[in-house]
This record gives sequence, structure tokens and C-alpha cells, in this order.
Amino acid sequence: MSFGDAVLDAIETKKRSGELSEEVIRKVVTSYTSGEVPDYQMSALLMAIFIQGMRYRETLALTEAMADSGVRYSFPHCVDKHSTGGVGDKISLTSLPIVASCGAPVAKLSGRGLGTTGGTIDKLESIPGFSVSLPEGRFKEQVEEIGLAIVEAGDLAPADKEIYALRDATGTVDSLPLIGSSTVSKKAATGAGYLLYDVKCGSGAFTKTPKEARELAELLVRLSRTLGIEASALITGMAEPLGLAVGNALEIRESVRFLRGGVSSTDLCEMTRIVAARLLQLKGFLRPEDVVEEAISSGAAYEKFREFVAAQGGDVKTLENLPVSDEVREVIAPRTGYVARLGASGVGRAALLLGAGRKRKGDTLDPGAGIEVFVKTGDEIEQGQPVARLYGERNAERANELILEALEISGTPVERPPAILGSV
Amino acid sequence: MSFGDAVLDAIETKKRSGELSEEVIRKVVTSYTSGEVPDYQMSALLMAIFIQGMRYRETLALTEAMADSGVRYSFPHCVDKHSTGGVGDKISLTSLPIVASCGAPVAKLSGRGLGTTGGTIDKLESIPGFSVSLPEGRFKEQVEEIGLAIVEAGDLAPADKEIYALRDATGTVDSLPLIGSSTVSKKAATGAGYLLYDVKCGSGAFTKTPKEARELAELLVRLSRTLGIEASALITGMAEPLGLAVGNALEIRESVRFLRGGVSSTDLCEMTRIVAARLLQLKGFLRPEDVVEEAISSGAAYEKFREFVAAQGGDVKTLENLPVSDEVREVIAPRTGYVARLGASGVGRAALLLGAGRKRKGDTLDPGAGIEVFVKTGDEIEQGQPVARLYGERNAERANELILEALEISGTPVERPPAILGSV
Repeated sequence: MSFGDAVLDAIETKKRSGELSEEVIRKVVTSYTSGEVPDYQMSALLMAIFIQGMRYRETLALTEAMADSGVRYSFPHCVDKHSTGGVGDKISLTSLPIVASCGAPVAKLSGRGLGTTGGTIDKLESIPGFSVSLPEGRFKEQVEEIGLAIVEAGDLAPADKEIYALRDATGTVDSLPLIGSSTVSKKAATGAGYLLYDVKCGSGAFTKTPKEARELAELLVRLSRTLGIEASALITGMAEPLGLAVGNALEIRESVRFLRGGVSSTDLCEMTRIVAARLLQLKGFLRPEDVVEEAISSGAAYEKFREFVAAQGGDVKTLENLPVSDEVREVIAPRTGYVARLGASGVGRAALLLGAGRKRKGDTLDPGAGIEVFVKTGDEIEQGQPVARLYGERNAERANELILEALEISGTPVERPPAILGSV
Repeated sequence: MSFGDAVLDAIETKKRSGELSEEVIRKVVTSYTSGEVPDYQMSALLMAIFIQGMRYRETLALTEAMADSGVRYSFPHCVDKHSTGGVGDKISLTSLPIVASCGAPVAKLSGRGLGTTGGTIDKLESIPGFSVSLPEGRFKEQVEEIGLAIVEAGDLAPADKEIYALRDATGTVDSLPLIGSSTVSKKAATGAGYLLYDVKCGSGAFTKTPKEARELAELLVRLSRTLGIEASALITGMAEPLGLAVGNALEIRESVRFLRGGVSSTDLCEMTRIVAARLLQLKGFLRPEDVVEEAISSGAAYEKFREFVAAQGGDVKTLENLPVSDEVREVIAPRTGYVARLGASGVGRAALLLGAGRKRKGDTLDPGAGIEVFVKTGDEIEQGQPVARLYGERNAERANELILEALEISGTPVERPPAILGSV
């Protein structure tokens, strides 16, 4: 069977809802990445997969083929976490120093963000001097010595990267098996032995309903386990931003405040503790909640964070007073009542407009731009009270409007939604 | 709505089995033909259409948009016929001179063949001197004066041509609404007012079963009628080759023999008479079978054919002794029995190998190459008797094998299948 035949064979099979063999899937992925299979054939196959679905065996074969398309690392003793993406989600920054300080090492290869705010890599780059690229030997040494290193992912699962770009242009993103194989192929290539998935659920997420989120969480865990990774998953809400800060330097600032023992929103505190404890549990720690609590209250977690920042060239002196934009503007509550919702997707779009995120690959973001929210769902507010502060020189007027549109005020008390909706 | 948005909008709608608006379909076709929409988006949409299907309104809108993508002719008083393609199908050559001689004018724009044998245009070109391209004014004059002109179709429905090439490369050919809109878009652009479709049914055809063939026939007729064309359809078998000759000059020779009143196979005689009578019926002729019979027996049909050939520069003196290949070889019956089948697709592949057809666009065909079959389904044969004669210098050994593979011999008598399976 030639490479060209493999994709036509796959199209014929999948358009009639048949099952693709591992051999065919591997040939399709290899020949698409090498340029032998044209985009127009691959997009026809992806649409057939989108509509007809894939069985577990097919999804697993696609995951493995994409993981094998580039460099594969091996950090079998390390833990890692992956979030499907949320507004203000800084849980990697808060939870990973905790687990590293407890002796669960982290070797994280992370990506840049596309959308409302930057990714973990972009956030870390807002620390003056911080370098997100280390030579491979240095990266491994740092993991051994400090137990925590986070660098920009280079050529991880390049087949996934190309296929994802094509899916993005052809309406085939929101497919469960394609999302699952894309996510796990990258994580498998990073090689961590213990993995926690944080599957976001809500209008701004891939998975809109708890049912869809659970299906995705189950798929991610099943694929990871088949590939020899100890994995579990949380299903968490993404109705409102996570914590109080949205934006790169602003999120580092909030993370530092939390790690220093400062007060933050309850959802950030709760989520960080649960994620850190879950990661320790995967590694076999006993009473992980107590271990986490001790790491925070003793200052060990913050100390680990400083050590990590220093090792990657970041200026630790600036950590407690990280520069953010001077251009600020407060958003004022239009009337008195209870916050029914401060919608995550609206706040995310406002942050993007202010310069905190990238609309297109290669766009320059403003590390000091973003939003601090002062209210969470359930809070009582008064007309004229500031509900958020906008940071950044770009589009402040439109961002202000978006925040006001995202803010729903109720005349009667509103209960706060739970941060954790379920787990796998 | 911009052009780029139109195709993404269409993909989103169709992947969830929604209905595309006429406006969206028209924008997609226009922007794909202009190059604004890339192949990979169009192929994703075509796969979504392939799997989810299209409602009649969508199929009609696609047909019209493709018909409008190039030149549109208007011959409202003319009749035309269209065959979905069969081995040895020379019914245009035999039936159209008949109807033209009866006063039903024919302005036919036809294509070259891809596959087992040439198209009508290729067959006519095997007549020395015959020109398949006429200036538009001369074409119209010939239709007025003689009532019969057949030229090569130029820029008819170019959108269909491009979309068809993409479908061919992405496994989206065998879709009822896509076949229907492709066929009718070209016929609508040729502008004949009266149209008979000959939908082939069998293993070598688009439509494998009588049910599928009837669905396609009904769709072709319905689309044509909505577009103001008087149309009907025949459903005909394509189990064995039509008539006795397969190949370009060989088919002209068989057509001439038939028109001169000579003996031919019963399926060719029957099909020609029925197609001609149906075309006259569409034009409103009374007792069309009698009119057809008179046109053949009086010699008027053959006289019309000679007149037509001469008008397009063909050497009429050669018609009764058209040159075919000198390289001949007979295929011998391996045993005694009854012909259960001389499979059309096997005979077609043999003709292609001998040089009668094109494997790829632009291949040169040998006008004198092809096959004469001496037996039809149901015939009694004896071991050692010749069952076919191969013409041509290329691959005679392999062609001989293919004919023997296509020949099924039964020990008990076999009934001939009917030529006409149904009509719409």
C-alpha cells in the first residue's frame, strides 16, 4: 500500500463509517506530515472523522502516530498537569511549585497561548529576565536539581500541530476523538509519568455541558493509561474567570500573592489545593491534602517558585512588585444587586482586546495588560462600585463595554457555582 | 458576509446536517472558482455534503450556481440526450441523426471521454477530416440549416469541472446530489429545451442497483424540469457492452451499419429506437415510434448523418469503410455452453488497454483500436469459436485475458436481460 493510497483508502472507509486500521492511520499521519498527502485530502478525511466519529482503537492509534511524529521525551518520575483552557487559569503557576517542593518533580514543556490570554510560557516571560528556552541538558539538570523546570515546547507532536491548523481552517475542531488524540499526543511526547487533566466545562470551553466534559475527561484518562501514564482528571467550571486576575503579569502577581500566603479568591485557593493534592496522590503520597497545606503555610512552595524563577534567569527581586500597565480604568457597576454571572468568555475577549492575548499566531502581546475583577458570582454589589480594573493602552473603551455586557446582575441572592464539577 | 465566511458558514451548517441557503451555495461556488476558497475547505464541505446529503432546494441551488459559472447557451427548440456512461454506448450517434431527420433539431455540446473508450467527440474525430470545433456562429447556422451539429464543449460549467476534479481526488464522487447537480449543470448550460437522460445501472456504473438508478433518474428529471427543460429518463442495463463494437472508429462503423439498415445486435436496435422515439415524444410528435421507423427504413436518418459529417468537414466517402487497426487477434471460447455474461467493465478495461480510451486526461488514444464482440448474453457457444476480435497494437495479450475473465459460460440456457429497466 503506497502512502497516497492510504489516505484514499482511509477516506473510503471512514465516509461509510468503517474502522481505520492502525497501519492506515500511521501511514496517513506520516505521509501528511511529509507533504505527500495534500491538505485537501486530509481535510476530507478529517470531516469524515468529524461526522462519523472514531472508535477507541482508532483514536489511540492516531494519538500514538502523532506523538511519534517528533521528539519524544521521557520523564517517568515527573508529574504534569494539563488544562483544556480557561480564562484566568493560572493553576500551573500555583500548584506545580507546591508539588515540586513536596518532592514530586515537574518537567513541563508548555505552549504559547492563542486566544484570550497567553499560555503559561507567555505568563512566565512577563518576569524580567526569565528564559523559556533551555538547552535539553540544562533542562534535565534543572529537573534533577530543583525539581521544577518549565520551557517552551519545540517540536512536540508536529503532526498534531499541522493537523490542528488544518482542522482550525475547516470546521473540524470540536470533535471528541480529535480533541482527545491531539491533547494526549502532545502530553505523551512530553513524557511525564503522572498526569492530571483539568477539563473545563462551560460556554467558553470546547465542552459545553458536564456530559461532554465527562466524555472528554474519560477519553483523556483512558488514552493516557493505555500509553502507560498514571492519569486522572477533574471536571471544573468555566462560567467566570478563575481567580481575580486575567493577563500575563497580572496572573503571575496573583500567583505570587497566593504562594506567599496572601488572600485570593476562594476558587483559586480551592482549585490549587485540589490539583496539587491530586498530583501528589498520583505519585503515591499519603494524606496529600495535609502535605499540600504544609507546603503552602511553611513557605516551601513559594521558596521553590523563587528558586525555579532564578534558575531560568528571572529577576526574583521583581516578583513581589511585577510591573503591569500604568494605563488603568475602572469598570463601574451600573446598578445595585447580586452578581449572577461575570461571564468568562466576555472577560476573556476584553483581555484580548486590551493586549493580553493573541488573535493570530505571531501577534505581539502586552505582558502588562489585562483585567482584575473585584467581584465573583454571588457577591452583593452597589451601583457605582468598581467591579473590575482594566490594564492596558489598547481598546479600553470597547473592553469596558464587554465587561459590562458580561456582568449579569440579579435582584435576588445568587448561589456561587462549585469550582469542581466532577472527577475521573 | 464575505466569501471566506460563506464556506466556513456552509461547513458549520452541513457538518451538523443543516440546510444551506441559496445565497451561501452561490457564494461558495463563486469564491471557489475564483480561487478565494482553498481546496482544503472545499473538500471538507464536499465530504460533509457527501455524508449528510442535500435537500432538493440545495441541490437545485448548486446546479444553478455551477451552470452560471461559465458560458450559457440557449437552444430552446433543440433536443439532446445524456448518458451517464457505458461501454459501447453509441446511442447518440445512432439516435440523433434519426430525430434530426424527423425535424427535431440537435445542438450538441459534448465532452471527451475519460476511461474505457472515448466520448462522442473522440468517436467522431475518427472520421478523417471531421472537425469537432466550430465558431459559435457557424455552429448555430448548422443547427438551423441541417438540424444537427455536435461540437466539443468548451467552458461549460467550469465550476463543476473544478469541483469534480476535487471530488475525484477526495472520495466524494459517488454522492447522489453531487452527481445530479454536476450532470444537470452542464446540460442546463448547453441550453437544449428537451432532454432525455439515459441512466445506466450495473456494476460498472455510478448507480449499482435499479433503486439507486431510479433515484438518480428522478433527480435529473426533477432538476431539469425546475430549470425549464422538458425532460424524461430511461434506466438501462449496463451488464454487457451495448451493441457489438467498443472503440472509436469501430463504434462509428457499427453506427453507420445500423443507419444503413444493416443488421446489428438487438440491444442497439431496441435502445436506438426507444431513445429516438422518446426524444420525439418530448418534442410533441404523435406516434413517434412510427416516425422513427420511417426515418430509418427510408434512409433519411443515414442521409442526415452524412449531411452532418460533411458539414463538419468529414470525408463521407470513408464512412462505409472507416479505417480501423490492422492488428487483430481473436479471442477463443474456452469451452462449450451458454454465455451467462460478457461483463461490460472487463471489456471496457480491455478496450482501454488496447488504446481505445484514456487513463489520464491528455493521453493519446488510438482511434482504430477496440473490440468487436461476437456473442451476447444468452448465446450458445462452442469451444474454439471466436467470441471477440481485438483491434490495436497495445497490450493484446492482457486484453485477451481480460475478455476471457469477463466471459462467464453456463452449462444451462441463460435468459437475456432486458435492455430497458425502467423510465421516469
